Amino acid sequence: MNELNSPFPTPQQRQEEREAKRSAVLRTAVQMFNERGFHQTSLDDVAARLGVSKPTIYHYLGNKDQVLLECVTIGLSQLIAAAEAARGTPGSGADRLTSFLRRYAEVNMDDFGRCVIRTSEEALAPDSRQQFRALKRRIDAAMRTLIEEAMADGSIAPGDPKLLGFALAGALNWPARWHDPGGPDSAETLAASLVDWLARGFLPRRR
Amino acid sequence: MNELNSPFPTPQQRQEEREAKRSAVLRTAVQMFNERGFHQTSLDDVAARLGVSKPTIYHYLGNKDQVLLECVTIGLSQLIAAAEAARGTPGSGADRLTSFLRRYAEVNMDDFGRCVIRTSEEALAPDSRQQFRALKRRIDAAMRTLIEEAMADGSIAPGDPKLLGFALAGALNWPARWHDPGGPDSAETLAASLVDWLARGFLPRRR
Repeated sequence: MNELNSPFPTPQQRQEEREAKRSAVLRTAVQMFNERGFHQTSLDDVAARLGVSKPTIYHYLGNKDQVLLECVTIGLSQLIAAAEAARGTPGSGADRLTSFLRRYAEVNMDDFGRCVIRTSEEALAPDSRQQFRALKRRIDAAMRTLIEEAMADGSIAPGDPKLLGFALAGALNWPARWHDPGGPDSAETLAASLVDWLARGFLPRRR
Repeated sequence: MNELNSPFPTPQQRQEEREAKRSAVLRTAVQMFNERGFHQTSLDDVAARLGVSKPTIYHYLGNKDQVLLECVTIGLSQLIAAAEAARGTPGSGADRLTSFLRRYAEVNMDDFGRCVIRTSEEALAPDSRQQFRALKRRIDAAMRTLIEEAMADGSIAPGDPKLLGFALAGALNWPARWHDPGGPDSAETLAASLVDWLARGFLPRRR
């Protein structure tokens, strides 16, 4: 163990500091992309808000395309984690699907998830676009599997899993465009209500 | 009446020719914006595909911002027309809402509707952005009214009309991102199936 009062950071402290700085750059960048749009935000703008120089951003993250790719990768990783958590949940297929959908909607109201939805593929350089698409396909596949399993155990209505997947994804991606993070409704509450509409449908059900 | 064989067009013919040219420019522009993204498409690209000069495009439509505003205005006008048509349909509030939602989804799979969904507000100049937002608010309000009327006559389930509006809009905007106009499923078939999922929900219903 290093002495507590040493002015020289340990390798681990240096690593943690580096991670904290990288993370601060990403959080500021993603918030500015979401507020202003990717094309309307320069790395100079991000650097200015953080009070650092543009080379500092290059040092931690690389160019603007790499920054965007990292932002959407974080958001997509949160969605993949949500799918994995749901797979491990006990109960029926419908329970697992519902649990995933709520978390999916919540992530899309958070900074990095919003960025995933608001980023058009064309904004990324070709290599980054391939990686973005590959991750999105993994989420689509995970949602499709949860739907198929719920149809298989009869806990949701039968039908075309692909089409249902698109309907659910669309309804739960959309909050990235309308939800006000500073508004009165928490992401959790909104996510639960949205998923309930999708689960029950808008036509009345017999009690 | 002008003589049929005159080589000089009548004012009406000139007007029709002008409209046809303007319409061709708009159709080409909107398709290129949808394919490549707005920021990745220049008016030079649009002019090249049409085999005309860039000043010709300026003559018919103005600058790139004005071309985009015209494209989204056409798409939004189609959605407003759909709401007006639905309002005049006989039947219950649920019938009118369902009729509107199907047409809404179809428009979003067509060139101009796709452009509405794929255009982020930041892409437009401030004045155009205000107009774009005002039209979108009209659509949101029209959908909200149809939902409220259907809740009022009890033909759809009670709940928060605003939240249901967001869920429906999201699910039916999303085809603008995934629907392949050259694919096997027609916009009409997909729209009807999507609306059916939203109407009935994914949890099984008693027969």
